[in-house]
Amino acid sequence: MLAAMGVRDAGAVGGEGEPELRLTLEAFRLIMDERMPFAALMGLRAEAIEPRSVRLRAVYDECFLRPGGTVAGPIMMGLADAAMYALVLSRIGPVELAVTTELSINFLRKPAPGDVLAEARLLKLGKRLAVGEVALWSESGSPSELVAHVTSTYSIPPPERRR
Amino acid sequence: MLAAMGVRDAGAVGGEGEPELRLTLEAFRLIMDERMPFAALMGLRAEAIEPRSVRLRAVYDECFLRPGGTVAGPIMMGLADAAMYALVLSRIGPVELAVTTELSINFLRKPAPGDVLAEARLLKLGKRLAVGEVALWSESGSPSELVAHVTSTYSIPPPERRR
Amino acid sequence: MLAAMGVRDAGAVGGEGEPELRLTLEAFRLIMDERMPFAALMGLRAEAIEPRSVRLRAVYDECFLRPGGTVAGPIMMGLADAAMYALVLSRIGPVELAVTTELSINFLRKPAPGDVLAEARLLKLGKRLAVGEVALWSESGSPSELVAHVTSTYSIPPPERRR
Amino acid sequence: MLAAMGVRDAGAVGGEGEPELRLTLEAFRLIMDERMPFAALMGLRAEAIEPRSVRLRAVYDECFLRPGGTVAGPIMMGLADAAMYALVLSRIGPVELAVTTELSINFLRKPAPGDVLAEARLLKLGKRLAVGEVALWSESGSPSELVAHVTSTYSIPPPERRR
Repeated sequence: MLAAMGVRDAGAVGGEGEPELRLTLEAFRLIMDERMPFAALMGLRAEAIEPRSVRLRAVYDECFLRPGGTVAGPIMMGLADAAMYALVLSRIGPVELAVTTELSINFLRKPAPGDVLAEARLLKLGKRLAVGEVALWSESGSPSELVAHVTSTYSIPPPERRR
Repeated sequence: MLAAMGVRDAGAVGGEGEPELRLTLEAFRLIMDERMPFAALMGLRAEAIEPRSVRLRAVYDECFLRPGGTVAGPIMMGLADAAMYALVLSRIGPVELAVTTELSINFLRKPAPGDVLAEARLLKLGKRLAVGEVALWSESGSPSELVAHVTSTYSIPPPERRR
Repeated sequence: MLAAMGVRDAGAVGGEGEPELRLTLEAFRLIMDERMPFAALMGLRAEAIEPRSVRLRAVYDECFLRPGGTVAGPIMMGLADAAMYALVLSRIGPVELAVTTELSINFLRKPAPGDVLAEARLLKLGKRLAVGEVALWSESGSPSELVAHVTSTYSIPPPERRR
Repeated sequence: MLAAMGVRDAGAVGGEGEPELRLTLEAFRLIMDERMPFAALMGLRAEAIEPRSVRLRAVYDECFLRPGGTVAGPIMMGLADAAMYALVLSRIGPVELAVTTELSINFLRKPAPGDVLAEARLLKLGKRLAVGEVALWSESGSPSELVAHVTSTYSIPPPERRR
């Protein structure tokens, strides 16, 4: 799927070889369950944490609809932000205090009722900032027709402030 | 409050005199109740629709917290997007099919537990696009210390596609 | 090169088959020469217009340097904006009055002295808006290490206002 | 002028009293002249460094025009970025290695031929990041009709890396 979508591969991050994963899917699910209660409101579910990307899903609920009968923007924004969080933690470990500093989203197509999927990739992992992009598509549509595109920056706390 | 915050006044939109309001607070609340069910998930409440700005509130709930004990970004993004929607409709009337085309948010300070408020102002109202900015602050903090700042663009459907 | 970079392929635009090109490289160069005199200030040169992407270059000049001895941000922003312009015109034809409505750039790495390259891809081509992303890299570095990433929206004038 | 525009006042930064200026207008002009040669290409001139804002101007030149006879976006982006740089240095001192990490611009109206002015204000000054907004208007138009609005983040190097 990832290759089929042609999403920028990890070369974009400049690394040689596979990056090391520092968080398992199970560990991130636990963080979502216990520490991000709003994620359940939005039907968020972590699906894959891989060396070069993570994938999350917003499981459709009727209450996600906005006028016009399409999935509302805030659901997509919440999904994308959580995907970036999972991506950053997968590379730096469970540093829960990593926080978004900015997020820009372009809404491209209106998603028909159905699950929305998000795949996040790193553009840069620095000591203080991590920048990534997130592609969002609708299960009710084609994976090649993005419903939204996000870029976002996370701030990584210095080692002494991670607790 | 608005003046005290020094938020850009309507002069920025270039209008002479007071712009005409085309949507009442009650009408927007009805749209939220009946057509935006996700708004209730996020505790959103419309508080004021005025000629030069609108103000919405996210009524605090424990489930809004993220690691670190502060209000999560998706709540702020949902609040800001709804504020822009209210703002645009207040100026063009109940054109429910107006949709966000892009939104950029800078997270400035971590909001302690408590309600978050948002005030939206227009930067430009064109025939096809409306651009605005939204200032967000926390009731638990000072109104002059923004917790986030948003700019966003809404696409206004042509008259023949408004139904 | 394009494949090696793993940049999102045209599937992202949802098209079947190759999109039709409506502007040649020569035609865009003429527009740059005759109608965009600031492009010469920034050393901009169009290098390729292909069905799924365009590529432009900012030919290095000492006066592009900022403190720290790296290429200044405004050069990268001008390059990216021109790349998006070329991309949009390549798909809609020489509609010179197409204009940028918003642009977001993340600066990822400081480019050492040398040419900067930009490759632009469409995320969506609508009737009124075109959205794309631009990857920028430095000839003095590795193409897989982006120096900046841009998303941008162009407004496409209606047919009756294209002259 | 500033008050008349209603631009967010320094209260937005949360400071008590007047912030201390750590860079004079003359010092910033020297940095522009000696260290930012591209600024001259764009006709940039620093006009005011005040406790709560800075103001820069792009002195009009025919070569700034784009198709349609209006001032090109890259001139506005270069002007806004330089205004943010001046603003940040005015508050942290001549830390030349401060760099933009992201910039988002909304183009609101097409500026007729003439000088473009920019006024930058801080939204937050942290230890590692400074966030601000920039209002741009055209001398050929009304100061209350912005031609563009920018938000931008600068990264502030740690003390040991400032030289």
